[in-house]
This record gives sequence, C-alpha cells and structure tokens, in this order.
Amino acid sequence: MEFIPYGHVTTPEGFVAGAVCAGMYASGPKAGQPDLGILFSQRECASAGVLTTNLVRSAPVYVNEKRLPAGNLRGAVTNSGNANAPFGNAGIAEAEEMAALAARHAGVPPEQFAVCSTGVTGVVLPIDKVRAAIPGITLSREGGPDFARAIMTTDTRPKQAAVAVTEGGRLLFRVGGCCKGSGMIHPNMATMLAYMTADAAVEPGYLQRLTKKVADATFNMVTVDGDTSCSDTLLVFANGAAGGETIREVDPAASLLEEAFMAVATRLARELARDGEGARHLIAVNVSGAATLGEARQLARTVALSSLVKTAVAGNDPNWGRILVAAGRAGVRLDPAKASVSLQGVPLFRNGGVVPFDEDDVHGRMKADEVAIDIDLALGDGRATAWGCDLTTDYVHINADYRT
Amino acid sequence: MEFIPYGHVTTPEGFVAGAVCAGMYASGPKAGQPDLGILFSQRECASAGVLTTNLVRSAPVYVNEKRLPAGNLRGAVTNSGNANAPFGNAGIAEAEEMAALAARHAGVPPEQFAVCSTGVTGVVLPIDKVRAAIPGITLSREGGPDFARAIMTTDTRPKQAAVAVTEGGRLLFRVGGCCKGSGMIHPNMATMLAYMTADAAVEPGYLQRLTKKVADATFNMVTVDGDTSCSDTLLVFANGAAGGETIREVDPAASLLEEAFMAVATRLARELARDGEGARHLIAVNVSGAATLGEARQLARTVALSSLVKTAVAGNDPNWGRILVAAGRAGVRLDPAKASVSLQGVPLFRNGGVVPFDEDDVHGRMKADEVAIDIDLALGDGRATAWGCDLTTDYVHINADYRT
Repeated sequence: MEFIPYGHVTTPEGFVAGAVCAGMYASGPKAGQPDLGILFSQRECASAGVLTTNLVRSAPVYVNEKRLPAGNLRGAVTNSGNANAPFGNAGIAEAEEMAALAARHAGVPPEQFAVCSTGVTGVVLPIDKVRAAIPGITLSREGGPDFARAIMTTDTRPKQAAVAVTEGGRLLFRVGGCCKGSGMIHPNMATMLAYMTADAAVEPGYLQRLTKKVADATFNMVTVDGDTSCSDTLLVFANGAAGGETIREVDPAASLLEEAFMAVATRLARELARDGEGARHLIAVNVSGAATLGEARQLARTVALSSLVKTAVAGNDPNWGRILVAAGRAGVRLDPAKASVSLQGVPLFRNGGVVPFDEDDVHGRMKADEVAIDIDLALGDGRATAWGCDLTTDYVHINADYRT
Repeated sequence: MEFIPYGHVTTPEGFVAGAVCAGMYASGPKAGQPDLGILFSQRECASAGVLTTNLVRSAPVYVNEKRLPAGNLRGAVTNSGNANAPFGNAGIAEAEEMAALAARHAGVPPEQFAVCSTGVTGVVLPIDKVRAAIPGITLSREGGPDFARAIMTTDTRPKQAAVAVTEGGRLLFRVGGCCKGSGMIHPNMATMLAYMTADAAVEPGYLQRLTKKVADATFNMVTVDGDTSCSDTLLVFANGAAGGETIREVDPAASLLEEAFMAVATRLARELARDGEGARHLIAVNVSGAATLGEARQLARTVALSSLVKTAVAGNDPNWGRILVAAGRAGVRLDPAKASVSLQGVPLFRNGGVVPFDEDDVHGRMKADEVAIDIDLALGDGRATAWGCDLTTDYVHINADYRT
C-alpha cells in the first residue's frame, strides 16, 4: 500500500465530483469560492456512514439517517456557509430538496443521495441559491479537489488523500478521501464532514462495521475545541470499479482494505487537527500502558483537549505538570507514581519523579510543526493516539468574530 | 441575613490571619507581593473540607486528606507561586513541614493545621523560603484581606465576602470567606482554593455534609477552562465565638446557616468566574426544565465550558446556535423541539423554532459585564446555574507565557 501523490476523493475509479459557488458567503475569504459540491459514483455501490451523536442535529443528519441503512447510496451533495441547523425537524424539507436536486442532476433516485451542510448555525438555508446553482455543477474524474474546497469553512486548505493497494505489482484497489474542519471539532462516535471512496467491491454490512472501526481510531480521536458539531458525518462509498471479488469481513483482502482505510483516515484526521482554527502546531498525544484501549483513548483525548496543555504548546512551554494534571482528571485509572511523560521524545517525568532536562532545548524542539506528547501509565496494554492543536489568539479572533 | 460591606474571611469573631512575601515570584505583578498566608481560629473549632478528585494531586492534598476527618482543624497555611505538584508522594515532607511551621507559629499541634499550595506545577517547592518567612507573619483580626491577596496567582483581585445572620435585630453569627482562581478552574466534586469561616458553633458531621452541599451548588458550578486543578481545596472552620447552641442538622438554625454559607459561596463562585483568566464577561448559564437536578447541572456546566459559546460571548455575538449545539452534546436528555434559549432576557429560540430578534439590540445588551444565558428544556423540574467567563485572547497570552 502506498500513498498516491496528490491523491483525492475521486482518485479511485468510477467516482466523479464537482463544485460551484452558490453564493453562501457574503464576505470573507470564501466569498466567490466554491461552496456547493457533489460527489458521485458512476456505478452502483455499497455505502456506509456514521453520524453525530449530538442530540441537536442539523437537518441533513435526519435525512441521511433514513437513507444510510439501505447501503446503496451513490453520492452526496454538500454546501458550506450554512449548517441548516439546529432547528429540530425544521429545515428537513430544504435538505430533502437539496438531495433531490443533486440526484436529478446526477441521474439517480433521490433516495440514493446523501446531503450535508456545514457552516454557521441558526440561519435558515437559502434553498433558492442551491436550486440556482446545482445545474451548473460539472461532474468529472478531476473534480475531487474542487469538491474538497467547496466543503471548507474556516479551514485554511483542503484535506485530501488517497492510497493504492497493490499485490505483486498489480493494482487491487484504491481508497481516497477528503474532509473539512476546523472548529466545533470533538467528534463523538462520529466525525466531522468526511467522505471516503474505494473502487473495491465491499459487502455493505462489512463496510458499515469497517467505517465505524476506522472512525473510532481516527476521526473520533481528533479534538480542536471540545465542541461536537450537529453536522458530524462520515460517508463511505465502495463501488467495485477496480474489479475483483466482493470483499467480505472474513476474506484475506479485508486486512488490506482496513489498512488502506485506516491510512487515508489517519492522514485526514491529522490534517484536521493540524488545520484547527488558529492552530500553529499539530499535537499528537500518544498514550501507552493504559488499563484498556478505551481508557487509553479517553486519556489521549482529554490531554489533547486541555486548554492549558494547548496554550502551553502555543507558547512552546515544556509544562509537563499541566499534561499530568490533565491526565489526572480524565476519569481513567492512573497512578502518578508509575506514570511517565515525554515531550518531543525528551523524558520530563518518570515513575512519579521529575527528570532533569534542558529547558531551552525542549523549548526549541517544541517549535516544530508537530509536537509529540508521550504518556506511559505502566498499567496495561491500552494504547491510543489523539490529535489536537494548540490554542492561539487566532482561535479566539476567528470565533469571536465568526458571524460579523 | 445580609452582606457585610467589605466583609472577609476574618470578619467572623475569633479568626485571625496574616501574610508576608516569601519571594515565591521572581517577576511579574506578584513579585514583592504577599504570597504566603495563615488563617487561624483563636478557639477550638469544627472543621470540614472537600478536596480535588483529580488523581494527580498536589502534595498538600495528601496531608489535608489525613487531617480533615478529625474535624478539629484550627487553621491553614497557604502559599501561591508554586503548587508543590504533581509529584505523587514527593513533596509531602515539604507540605508537612510547612504545616508544622505554621502550627508552631500559631501555637497549636501540627495536626490541627491544613496546608495548601497553588501556582506553577512541576517545580519543587522552595521550602527554605517558607522556613524564613513564616515567623514574620502577624496574625490579626484585620488580616483577612492580606490572606486573600496572598493566595492569588493570575487573579487580578482578591475574592472575599461575609454575611451577618440576625434574628429580631440580634446578631446570631457571621459567615465569611475568600477564594482564589483563576485558571485551571473546572472543579470536580471539590473546588479551587477557598476558605470559609463561621463564628457559629456547628456539629462537625453536619458541617462536613453542609460543606459538600454548598460546594456542589456553588464552587463546583464554576468553570473557566475545563481543567481541574490538582490542588482544589475548600476548607471550612466554625468556631462558635458568636455564642449560641451548637447547630445540628435538625435544628431550625441549620437553615439560616445553610443560607449564609450558600450566599457567601455563591458570591465567591461568581467572582471566581468573573475573574477567570483573561475574562471580560461573567457568564451565568441558567438551566430550567431539565429532567433532574443532576442533568440541569451537567447541562449548565457544559454550555458554560463550551469554547464556542465563550468566544461568541467575547465577541458579543448572539449565536444561540452554538448554545443549543453545546447543550446537545452534554449527555443529558434534551428535545430540540421543546427547548428554548434566551440571551440577556431576549428569547432567540423557542420550542424548536427561531424567534425573530433585533441582532443589534442583543449584541448591545451582551456588552454588559454579566451575560445571562437561559435554557429551558421543558422536560422536568431540574434547575441549576453554572458560572463561567468568556474566552479572550488574553487567556491565551496568560497561559502561553505563564512560566516565561
């Protein structure tokens, strides 16, 4: 398996995409940029997805929840600039119309289209703009990057990746994906808007289980600000365009498929965190020695979310005390006398005691784009990584002024 | 019951306090200011307390945990500028010596003194500075404000209050208190450093139950940044100096006592939130109609903690969508179709629908020092208030540069 340079969501065979500017943004860097996109499989395909667990949900989530169980979605239409949320049941008619317009444009029944909206909450979706814009969307094999740009809100860049899986030099299948952040990011049993495609043929039930497993280990381990979006959605399409047998969970190819999905999703998840609102550092919190996998994940997410850890990283400050104190409130088993903490590979705290270190040296190492925090609890085999970003004054500016 | 103007922790009879500069701060606004204080009851008294539930604890917490059950503490010694944490068992000798030095200075056995430390984590307590400074502390009835200033870290001002409880014009007793914030504030079954005094005589078992009840409704409903300190401690002393019978839980005077403690603690809790690091607004989140009291508290704390709600308030932005979305991830029962949200008394969302409002008007109302967010779930009788503050660029500056 290897990453395809500049790979994206329509790199796998049989997928097309496109985007236009529907005028969702009146001002700011997205004004005049693509804000409405369609992703489509030219062939029948298996589909899967996970949705936000927030009880306050955007209207599209209700629509997708009804359509996902059939496992035969062919595409998704997505706008940025307006989340069509949170109005309870209100807004659903607009979401359904948006899906129907896109489905008609692509030439399939409405029930085979998912719909997503992301952006400001509390403002009614301007469906007239969607009606006017959809017919202008050109779907092509080259459209993946346009689609990835159309779903951005405060993201500073698109997030996309694809891998090719080969065996003996022969291409088996490809997996691609894209996603958007970059605030209200603390996925809970779901993820932010993300789309993954594969030209492998996959048994739908297995595809759904795989989707959940991948989301839990990747997108659900990302945190920017602790706020879970009402729109969190991961949609996965596998259309079999690469040929080959349909992959079931028991087949040998399943491990290759899982590896490919994990690789693409991990890269996207890292890019989500790296591009967190105002972020200057990607933070990777690697926990080992936790009593269980679940506790490792919870601890890693808690530390990655800590405002004091995030501001310390913003200041390149090797403040291991904040790391350990955040760990102590994670609600997981932890004995400070056994715990160890390293920053950028430098041990700072081991078995309950301070390790003398060169403050200036670690301060300098923390200026890197990516800061690694390693925490070993020495209690068990639980191991997990969470990705976050530092908390900077730009985060505050972005969110204090978001609507104005 | 009424608040005593400029009341403080030694306003109740029989309590004395004092503070000196031990030199814990090398630079910054606290350099040269009092950073080591003693609070002391001149009479035997009943004591109670609650401690952090963080598994990573400062050394003083271990000492206090051993001494609290006796219920006969006479005083506490506290430094700022160094948390003596988090080193597991290490640091305990320093904490015990600090308590012993203060107890000797006050003339009581070491077991009758509690000890607290607050400030930077990860740095060994300079016990030599404590040794040199304690003999210079003068204890007096007027020392409460000095004590309150000595425990400050990034606080911009001391937090103190006292009430007098009267019956038919006759003084029954007084309750006073002080506390410090103002970062790493998200108390969990405990609180930040806070001290309360009463010159009523109180049965010790009841005093402990009352302390827990008061903390849960006041200090534990404050959040600044979601980080729970390793030092959180509330200590309560009741010495009977006002005369009168010992108050037991079943006595009529117990309701007066509870009212007084709640009033002082609520004021201190509000001041904690108002002085949160970098804060420009106090945020009061009032939840009603929750299914239970516990769910009301959880929801109120979740909304008060939301980075997106906090930044919206910083920008005076009536972004009710963020409030509702934060509520939706609180893990409590909630039906968006029944929920209502008001900001500064102006309804913005009611029964699942937007209420048209004058954006400029609400924007203007949000410039007040205090911003009230009212959320009604219309599901039950659960009702609670949480206090928080806005998230500003100053919070980031304070915490990115805290140690440098």
